[in-house]
Amino acid sequence: MTARKSEKDNAGKAAKYVYDFSEGRADMKSLLGGKGANLAEMTGLGLPVPPGFTITTEACRYYSAHGEYPPGLKEEIDEHLAGLEKRMGKKLGDDNDPLLVSVRSGAAISMPGMMDTVLNLGLNDRSVQGLIKQTGDPRFAYDAYRRFIQMFASIVMEVDRDHFERALSELKDARKVRLDVELEAKDWQELVKRFKAIVRREAGRDFPSNPREQLDLAIKAVFRSWMNPRAIIYRRTYDIPDDLGTAVNVQSMVFGNKGEDSATGVCFTRDPNTGEKRKFGEYLTNAQGEDVVAGIRTPKGLDEMRKEHPSLYRELTAIMDKLERHYRDMQDIEFTMEQGKLYMLQTRTGKRSAAAAVRIAVEMAKEGLISKEEAVGRVQPDQLDLLLHPRLDPGAKYQVAATGLPASPGAAVGAVVFDADTAKERGERGEKVILVRWETTPDDMHGIVKAQGILTSRGGMTSHAAVVARGMGKPCVCGAEDVKIDLSARCCEIDGKVIREGDPITIDGTTGRIILKAEKLIEPSLDDPYLKQLLAWADGIRRLKVRTNADTPEDAKRARKFGAEGIGLCRIEHMLITEPGLSIIRRFILAERRKEQEEALAELLPLLREDFAGILKAMNGLPVTIRLLDPPLHEFLPKLLDLRLEMLVKHIEGDRAGYEESERLYRKVEEEHEQNPMLGLRGCRLGIVYPGVTQVQVRAIIEAACELKKQGKNPIPEIMVPLVAFRSELAAEKKKIMAEARRVMKEQGVEVPLMVGTMIELPRAALTAGEIAAEAEFFSFGTNDLTQTTLGFSRDDAGRFIRYYLEKGLLERDPFESLDTEGVGRLVRMAAEEGRARRPRLKLGICGEHGGDPRSIHFCHRVGLDYVSCSPFRVPVARLAAAHAQLGEVEDATK
Amino acid sequence: MTARKSEKDNAGKAAKYVYDFSEGRADMKSLLGGKGANLAEMTGLGLPVPPGFTITTEACRYYSAHGEYPPGLKEEIDEHLAGLEKRMGKKLGDDNDPLLVSVRSGAAISMPGMMDTVLNLGLNDRSVQGLIKQTGDPRFAYDAYRRFIQMFASIVMEVDRDHFERALSELKDARKVRLDVELEAKDWQELVKRFKAIVRREAGRDFPSNPREQLDLAIKAVFRSWMNPRAIIYRRTYDIPDDLGTAVNVQSMVFGNKGEDSATGVCFTRDPNTGEKRKFGEYLTNAQGEDVVAGIRTPKGLDEMRKEHPSLYRELTAIMDKLERHYRDMQDIEFTMEQGKLYMLQTRTGKRSAAAAVRIAVEMAKEGLISKEEAVGRVQPDQLDLLLHPRLDPGAKYQVAATGLPASPGAAVGAVVFDADTAKERGERGEKVILVRWETTPDDMHGIVKAQGILTSRGGMTSHAAVVARGMGKPCVCGAEDVKIDLSARCCEIDGKVIREGDPITIDGTTGRIILKAEKLIEPSLDDPYLKQLLAWADGIRRLKVRTNADTPEDAKRARKFGAEGIGLCRIEHMLITEPGLSIIRRFILAERRKEQEEALAELLPLLREDFAGILKAMNGLPVTIRLLDPPLHEFLPKLLDLRLEMLVKHIEGDRAGYEESERLYRKVEEEHEQNPMLGLRGCRLGIVYPGVTQVQVRAIIEAACELKKQGKNPIPEIMVPLVAFRSELAAEKKKIMAEARRVMKEQGVEVPLMVGTMIELPRAALTAGEIAAEAEFFSFGTNDLTQTTLGFSRDDAGRFIRYYLEKGLLERDPFESLDTEGVGRLVRMAAEEGRARRPRLKLGICGEHGGDPRSIHFCHRVGLDYVSCSPFRVPVARLAAAHAQLGEVEDATK
Repeated sequence: MTARKSEKDNAGKAAKYVYDFSEGRADMKSLLGGKGANLAEMTGLGLPVPPGFTITTEACRYYSAHGEYPPGLKEEIDEHLAGLEKRMGKKLGDDNDPLLVSVRSGAAISMPGMMDTVLNLGLNDRSVQGLIKQTGDPRFAYDAYRRFIQMFASIVMEVDRDHFERALSELKDARKVRLDVELEAKDWQELVKRFKAIVRREAGRDFPSNPREQLDLAIKAVFRSWMNPRAIIYRRTYDIPDDLGTAVNVQSMVFGNKGEDSATGVCFTRDPNTGEKRKFGEYLTNAQGEDVVAGIRTPKGLDEMRKEHPSLYRELTAIMDKLERHYRDMQDIEFTMEQGKLYMLQTRTGKRSAAAAVRIAVEMAKEGLISKEEAVGRVQPDQLDLLLHPRLDPGAKYQVAATGLPASPGAAVGAVVFDADTAKERGERGEKVILVRWETTPDDMHGIVKAQGILTSRGGMTSHAAVVARGMGKPCVCGAEDVKIDLSARCCEIDGKVIREGDPITIDGTTGRIILKAEKLIEPSLDDPYLKQLLAWADGIRRLKVRTNADTPEDAKRARKFGAEGIGLCRIEHMLITEPGLSIIRRFILAERRKEQEEALAELLPLLREDFAGILKAMNGLPVTIRLLDPPLHEFLPKLLDLRLEMLVKHIEGDRAGYEESERLYRKVEEEHEQNPMLGLRGCRLGIVYPGVTQVQVRAIIEAACELKKQGKNPIPEIMVPLVAFRSELAAEKKKIMAEARRVMKEQGVEVPLMVGTMIELPRAALTAGEIAAEAEFFSFGTNDLTQTTLGFSRDDAGRFIRYYLEKGLLERDPFESLDTEGVGRLVRMAAEEGRARRPRLKLGICGEHGGDPRSIHFCHRVGLDYVSCSPFRVPVARLAAAHAQLGEVEDATK
Repeated sequence: MTARKSEKDNAGKAAKYVYDFSEGRADMKSLLGGKGANLAEMTGLGLPVPPGFTITTEACRYYSAHGEYPPGLKEEIDEHLAGLEKRMGKKLGDDNDPLLVSVRSGAAISMPGMMDTVLNLGLNDRSVQGLIKQTGDPRFAYDAYRRFIQMFASIVMEVDRDHFERALSELKDARKVRLDVELEAKDWQELVKRFKAIVRREAGRDFPSNPREQLDLAIKAVFRSWMNPRAIIYRRTYDIPDDLGTAVNVQSMVFGNKGEDSATGVCFTRDPNTGEKRKFGEYLTNAQGEDVVAGIRTPKGLDEMRKEHPSLYRELTAIMDKLERHYRDMQDIEFTMEQGKLYMLQTRTGKRSAAAAVRIAVEMAKEGLISKEEAVGRVQPDQLDLLLHPRLDPGAKYQVAATGLPASPGAAVGAVVFDADTAKERGERGEKVILVRWETTPDDMHGIVKAQGILTSRGGMTSHAAVVARGMGKPCVCGAEDVKIDLSARCCEIDGKVIREGDPITIDGTTGRIILKAEKLIEPSLDDPYLKQLLAWADGIRRLKVRTNADTPEDAKRARKFGAEGIGLCRIEHMLITEPGLSIIRRFILAERRKEQEEALAELLPLLREDFAGILKAMNGLPVTIRLLDPPLHEFLPKLLDLRLEMLVKHIEGDRAGYEESERLYRKVEEEHEQNPMLGLRGCRLGIVYPGVTQVQVRAIIEAACELKKQGKNPIPEIMVPLVAFRSELAAEKKKIMAEARRVMKEQGVEVPLMVGTMIELPRAALTAGEIAAEAEFFSFGTNDLTQTTLGFSRDDAGRFIRYYLEKGLLERDPFESLDTEGVGRLVRMAAEEGRARRPRLKLGICGEHGGDPRSIHFCHRVGLDYVSCSPFRVPVARLAAAHAQLGEVEDATK
């Protein structure tokens, strides 16, 4: 857009395709490219930038369209080249004191490594002599010359780079040396000859010796590089328009390898690892930029520079301060000293670790360099997440054997175990174990609790393992299909290696990586004062409230510490998958008479009441949304397969009574069996078909609340009816809930505030939200199930094709991880609007896994929800993301 | 609405609450009630209607609101009563020649039997003497008197009817007689005394002897009856507003029991069973209406009337002709002859059998009595359905042992069998069997094919059994929970009775009834000329096209005979669940190398090609929409449980090789196992993950089409991609389809027209239909799956709670039977609109089970679909329903 605009601006005037660095500014990126604008900005700041000029992206677009320079460009280049020569007091290709230039691409949007660069342009057989004269260093001059030929030939003339590498190797072999530095000037001179011969042979023409011709050829090659396949793919991937074009920067060369008074280096205005406010840098004397990267010599630090080159140090650090102040952020700077004179080659906002990002943002705000809002905006929520979990050392090297879905963040190390019982046994002995399963079920809970982390070969981002692990803040890698488990042999195969039970493994739930040894982990620092400060500022900015999904008093307490402002989803299922709850609910399900059912429910009451009391107490004064029992009942029953085998065993053993008992159970379980339990008898359907199930839950909640109220506490329960598709369902359940609640309050003689609402987790509920809002005081979008039904993706089964879809580009993101705003989001928006139209004060929240995903949180903010709810460990992330959403809105409004 | 309008009309004038029969018309129903308007209409036609007047619904509304007559009503009644007395030459309660009247309710909307009637009003101890004088029949007079007391006391004075019944029984016991007719005049006189004593005792007051007071009390009682509980419940059920009110008809009594020149009867202007154009009637001489109903004496027919009462016959048949011509429909008429004089008591449109409805409509149109459009509009599509299947004799009596869901219409009789193998075996021996299962799966197909009908204890209207049975036109009752199957004992329990394998059973898939014996069935008459004519007219009216869901050439041929205009859904699954297809697809799924997969697909090709060729040929010149493979692959694999047992058996037998083979299979099947297969790896996901699966299908289709083309035929294949959620999925599949199709056409040197489209069967597809339409040439709404996902109802599992919901009134209709227009329908409408906005010529159809449901067809018409597609046997129903939809639209437009 801006590019086109500038074309239009220029419409009336004579076209201007070339800008001297002194003519440009940082905000001219679309015309001059990022690098050109930045060099211009530094030049404008009066910093010692090697002079040069930039050919605009407009010229590139013309070239792409017409295959030739736009009219007048050649003359403009001549003009600016003449100016440059005049300023430098050197001439391109001069026999005595040649000007050498670099030709670099620079697009408006950074595309690192995607396009090409030519250095040392201007050398030929005569000007190399001039370079020798000036430097007195033939070795340096011939080395520069052969580098130039190599680069120019491969980039501009499309000669395969390998030919040159081979020629260099042959020469080294002939000279019986191993390293480049062992070659002498005459060797490099010989190589220049050989390189030129290669060019003649491969390109079918001589290497161009005219420096002005070299320059045009190089500029055109950079233009062409915009359309090279690497660049095109990169742009497709990052959604960068093809018609932006690249600018070309022609800059006089400076050399850090012209002796001991020359050097090259990089520096950061603050520590990029810790964020500490101390300058940090590395340099090598008598070296070129690539030598620093190659790591052959150990670079020196700024302290040594202060001693060895005090004036350089003073000048450099003053510039660092100036740049940081100017750009108002930590800078990553490249510099070169040529024979005692400092040149600034590049400055850009420095990459930093998550911890550094937080500290730098907070300290800069405290210094008054940036506002609190800017500080909050500078830390990405996902970065924060890294700080809240043990993590692999970002600097360490390790071998990744396989990759699964990054289902629950953080890294974990432990011994591989293949079943929950073993996990529990070894875990209780204090051993660190990783539970490795095809997938997990509620039956595995006792093992999950004791494991350091979970690795499954099946299931997606919201499979049982993933959801449970995130809830517990345990690392989890899911759907790692390359993990082939052989349970009977107690081993698995990963990347061709056999892993036996007890072998060490490291999993990284942040990236999905699996490493076949025990790696060292960095522990999280939860009490970091910078983090606390940043989040406090975020809290002051955001509109969206942040609640947590918590099922136990412990979870609730932890989430409150993380800043949760209530519970958005409290499930009671966990009480029914462990004893004594499990036996009771089984008795209820298997009961053949109404009386037995009632007895089971009566036994359940005190268990539920105690649990609810604990949670409501932990969240004293904050709302607690309790979802009525949701899962299909057979989740609480033994598996059909197991029972069938048991029957067979009893039969073989001749145990007739045992057989009959197993058979009875088998029949009952078979009766409850469902083809697609996700779409079966669950959610509010349970309460409708078994009214007692709703009543006992309501009684437990209200009795607990009344008890707390009597103790002077302030419980705020909200009862949520799950899986509603029809208004009539909610109406029926609500009637029962209110009747039982009133009954209990009357018995207890205490009034407790009570809201009744529903989950919106079926498309029909969203489509008829206006109707449903007539019955509901709040909606909570259950975007896990809503995603399952809207997309027809079972979260337990879709993992295998979702991975495939992501790889093939059919999906941009896992829809269980980041809300599908186009499909599911459209339903959420419709329901929010139509619900509020029916009931203006309708409270709206989200309690699916998406409640902790920053991108989804932005969406929730935009559609006007009141809160998001996420697992305890994601609460800080959500607080920050909510602040970002608010800042983004303010930004949009002021645009 | 109309009621309010008439109130408004009267606003300016003095209120008029009473209309003489000669003042009203048929179109004043909301003011005069149905009965009153009809009596007025007949009076206006000059027919001999016993004179009388109607008190309006407005008066009733006033009474309901104020508890008293509106001002002026009493005087209006007096006035009209005086007029009536004058016309009749009798006075109410006269000692010599008393006028007797009936007081009957009559609402605007018929509420049969819901409100109350008082006959013989005007009798008291004196006027009964006048009646005796006039008739010379004290027995008749006292009988009439005691009937009056009984009716009046129970209805008006709220005395329990039982008291009177008891008194009558006691008297008969005392007289030692069994029947009422055996009682003499003095007995009835005695009973009058006893009845009056009962009234005094129970009501606390004397029976009112003033006829004018009797009249007011009776009128008010009828007013009150509008709000009696029976009436209120009836109105709730049929959604009739409470504020309509009822009119009250006061009519002079006539008696068919005043001797041998008196009679009473009913007649129909055409035969209500066959529809034949011949007058039909029954009457009893010297009898009252209730005697005809009681069936104690055998009534005589019209032929006898012609002989015995030729003038009556002439007068009556002339009136019948007049009434049919006037009302332009077959009439059901009540008449009474009092001492030689004919009176018309009622005429209404006569109920008729399905066959009669068709014949009458067609013949009346041919006679010019009604238009073709009216004829089409007079037959309900669901009635038609009855004609297309064997059915239980509507007149027969049988005992219903249990009821399930009416899953596939028609009745079937056969011996109970409990598994598909037995069904196949016995069926092939020529035995008629009913397959009784918990539910059916594709494994049962060989048995279903051979059974007369299917009965399942689980599953809903679109469970496997239901869908398959409807497709085959076989009767099916589903989800009959009261059928308790004990497979190991080879028996089941229904209604407390044990049914063993081989016992006879009758199921009625039209009503869901189960009868524990073999009933006689009426066979359908498909070649009925009236039906053919009616459907031809319907075809001329409808805009919506009707296609069929057919998977085999046989189905296709049958559907074409039924009038299908193409195939809307052709599935290839059936070829893969029977040999040799099953073995091949299993080999494909279990293949461990790509080469084995390719070999399996290559073997599949000729099978598929042959089948497609057959279908395309049968549908020559009509479009055939072929859906690519849709079900999850594990549907083609053995069950996990079976394999586990097999493993165990092999283990026990020490068959190591067998064990390992079973284990290998078990592992693979386990790998394919899904928690919710409905939402798993199926539909287009299969083709995306296994590209060869799509290619082989496309190749088979196009090769078949090319072959036919070479033979001079005109194949019109349309390839449909199932279960699309994202545009990218369809784009990827379409690319493959078009590439393979072009390849085949090039190989064959033939061009075949080919459309590629998609099913809209996931909410996301509907929500992003605008996007998806960019890739799709047609949409076919797969409303089975769309209902499953939108409502979160698994069609296999939801049966048990849907039934509960229907019983409790949480749902009005089974959403798998009749489209949920509010939820699913909203998605359909959105998708249709947004799809057409993107691609104006987008072809739209529906291929879910709803395509055969008249209510849903109306919806499809309204939202502008191009066609509906349904099972072959529903095609005639759909043709008629589509015509109705068009007629409804025209009617709406002219309103």
